[in-house]
Amino acid sequence: MPTNQSWYLRRRPVGEVSEGDLELVSEEMSPLADDMVRVRTLYLSLDPTNRIWMSDMDAYLPPVELNTPMRGGSIGVVEESNFDAVSVGSIVNTGLATWALYNDLPGDAVNVLPPIPGVPLTAFMGPLGATGMTAYFGLMDIGAPKEGDTIVVSAAAGAVGSMVGQIGKINGCRVVGIAGSDEKCRWLTDVAGFDAAINYKTEDVGAALDQHCPDGIDINFENVGGTIMEAVIARLNDFSRMPLCGLISTYNADPEASTGPKNFENLLMRRTKVQGFIVIDYLDRFAEGIAAMGGWLMEGKLKFETDIVEGLENAPSALRRLFTGANLGKLVLQVSEPPA
Amino acid sequence: MPTNQSWYLRRRPVGEVSEGDLELVSEEMSPLADDMVRVRTLYLSLDPTNRIWMSDMDAYLPPVELNTPMRGGSIGVVEESNFDAVSVGSIVNTGLATWALYNDLPGDAVNVLPPIPGVPLTAFMGPLGATGMTAYFGLMDIGAPKEGDTIVVSAAAGAVGSMVGQIGKINGCRVVGIAGSDEKCRWLTDVAGFDAAINYKTEDVGAALDQHCPDGIDINFENVGGTIMEAVIARLNDFSRMPLCGLISTYNADPEASTGPKNFENLLMRRTKVQGFIVIDYLDRFAEGIAAMGGWLMEGKLKFETDIVEGLENAPSALRRLFTGANLGKLVLQVSEPPA
Repeated sequence: MPTNQSWYLRRRPVGEVSEGDLELVSEEMSPLADDMVRVRTLYLSLDPTNRIWMSDMDAYLPPVELNTPMRGGSIGVVEESNFDAVSVGSIVNTGLATWALYNDLPGDAVNVLPPIPGVPLTAFMGPLGATGMTAYFGLMDIGAPKEGDTIVVSAAAGAVGSMVGQIGKINGCRVVGIAGSDEKCRWLTDVAGFDAAINYKTEDVGAALDQHCPDGIDINFENVGGTIMEAVIARLNDFSRMPLCGLISTYNADPEASTGPKNFENLLMRRTKVQGFIVIDYLDRFAEGIAAMGGWLMEGKLKFETDIVEGLENAPSALRRLFTGANLGKLVLQVSEPPA
Repeated sequence: MPTNQSWYLRRRPVGEVSEGDLELVSEEMSPLADDMVRVRTLYLSLDPTNRIWMSDMDAYLPPVELNTPMRGGSIGVVEESNFDAVSVGSIVNTGLATWALYNDLPGDAVNVLPPIPGVPLTAFMGPLGATGMTAYFGLMDIGAPKEGDTIVVSAAAGAVGSMVGQIGKINGCRVVGIAGSDEKCRWLTDVAGFDAAINYKTEDVGAALDQHCPDGIDINFENVGGTIMEAVIARLNDFSRMPLCGLISTYNADPEASTGPKNFENLLMRRTKVQGFIVIDYLDRFAEGIAAMGGWLMEGKLKFETDIVEGLENAPSALRRLFTGANLGKLVLQVSEPPA
């Protein structure tokens, strides 16, 4: 039996994830049970929502229990199979698994990924994966973009935000992104085709929004929360829409200290629709989203970046990159070597 | 020419409306212009939104200009007409007019009200008026009640809230109202048929919601804001809806001091839809709303109260009743004597 390596959640982080919150444990694996497949992790998806799962809060999924392996989604290769429909050597999306070198999973819970010429496997964690579906359904279903609308997206150079902006451009909208470095802003305008980008670390966000959104804001795709969200809310148009995708600025915060948007009242005055959503709510429509995103990807209309960090031992420190704004594009941990 | 009496806005209130913010002015009227009708006010509608109009904020309508008559909606009798389609003696809804004894209005801007046997004129300010339409469209269009849903409504004994709850009951929902006195709570359960009522001045709202909403809350019809709203948000179910109708607790507040709901994040976790709306957005669907509400009214399914204060000179002090919670049902100022 192989020896597995798994990150166990040992205590709930206070503020950012710190040394000792998680522990990497080696343990010999049991024989594979009936109807299960053993998947060796190639790429582990690291996402802001991982931080939510570590907290003892009433979130959309129960928190990870202490002293159990940390929850995560991954792409892996099937090394052993007791499930007829999934053969050894298949590349699969695990759905929700754990931060581990190996996961034993029900064979009917994994999705075999078709090889697509010219498209790297990690695209199934980006435009064709959960983050791409988040962008697609959040913008198309809740944002309901119309030609000529102005869209603002925060965390714009992230895996979700970068897709939101490009889907917005495909739909004939003006797109303004907010990101945390000049390098990211350049990528947004020069590579991803955004109309403008605002560096919130060096610019006055309100003044920059006034400049780049002369006709106000019709859609605020919200990933961040806090004062950036307030600056956008202050400039919403009548009948604007606000897909509420994430509030990363609050995930490390003390819940007692958190405040909602001070200008919440403006959502009433502007008759804004704010709608929270989680991509798993759209699981039964993924085929539609993958078809649309896959088509645009083939046409070269979607640029994406993957920020790959190597080594399972680096999972906690890599996750922190999402909160310091260090990464551009989809953050992925390469856990083991893909087959040639 | 008759002498008019009009309340002029002299300065923008800080906090609650106080002596000197408005001034009652007598002035001789000019002759009635072409295509206009002269309407003597019978009933002036007093609503929380009046306070919004007095502030220099970016609301859904421009603020009332200083040193002009205060804006208001009323029902009156036509005393003179230069507009063929509206005859002298007609009872009309003025739409937006002013806090005055007389309003000269374009003949095509007033709505002649049909007499309905057994239904008092003031019903056109309640179930069949703007507050009734607010309740109807906010609940039906945004709240989208399903049989068995639990609805919570704040300011439940007010003109809007009392209708929301009864429309909810008609639609097979469990309805819990939040109000500010035992008398109002008794009215809600004993007269209006609410399943439960919570006196926020004497009860722990959170604990009472836990007791009265054992299956959580599917629809929060929000009229108030502040800590009551937070208590409701904390108990929302997945895929809940929150028609955002009013935030009366904030209208007198210092905008700099205001905070949004501290648990804004829960709107994401619960995938709640929050949607601001103003009844004027539904003007083109009023016929639908009046037909539905009128039908239920005839069937005796809608109980309503009218809190009538007499005398134009009492308009500012009467308005304050809305903010102290003194009134039950629709607050109306009787300005002059209706025709026999």
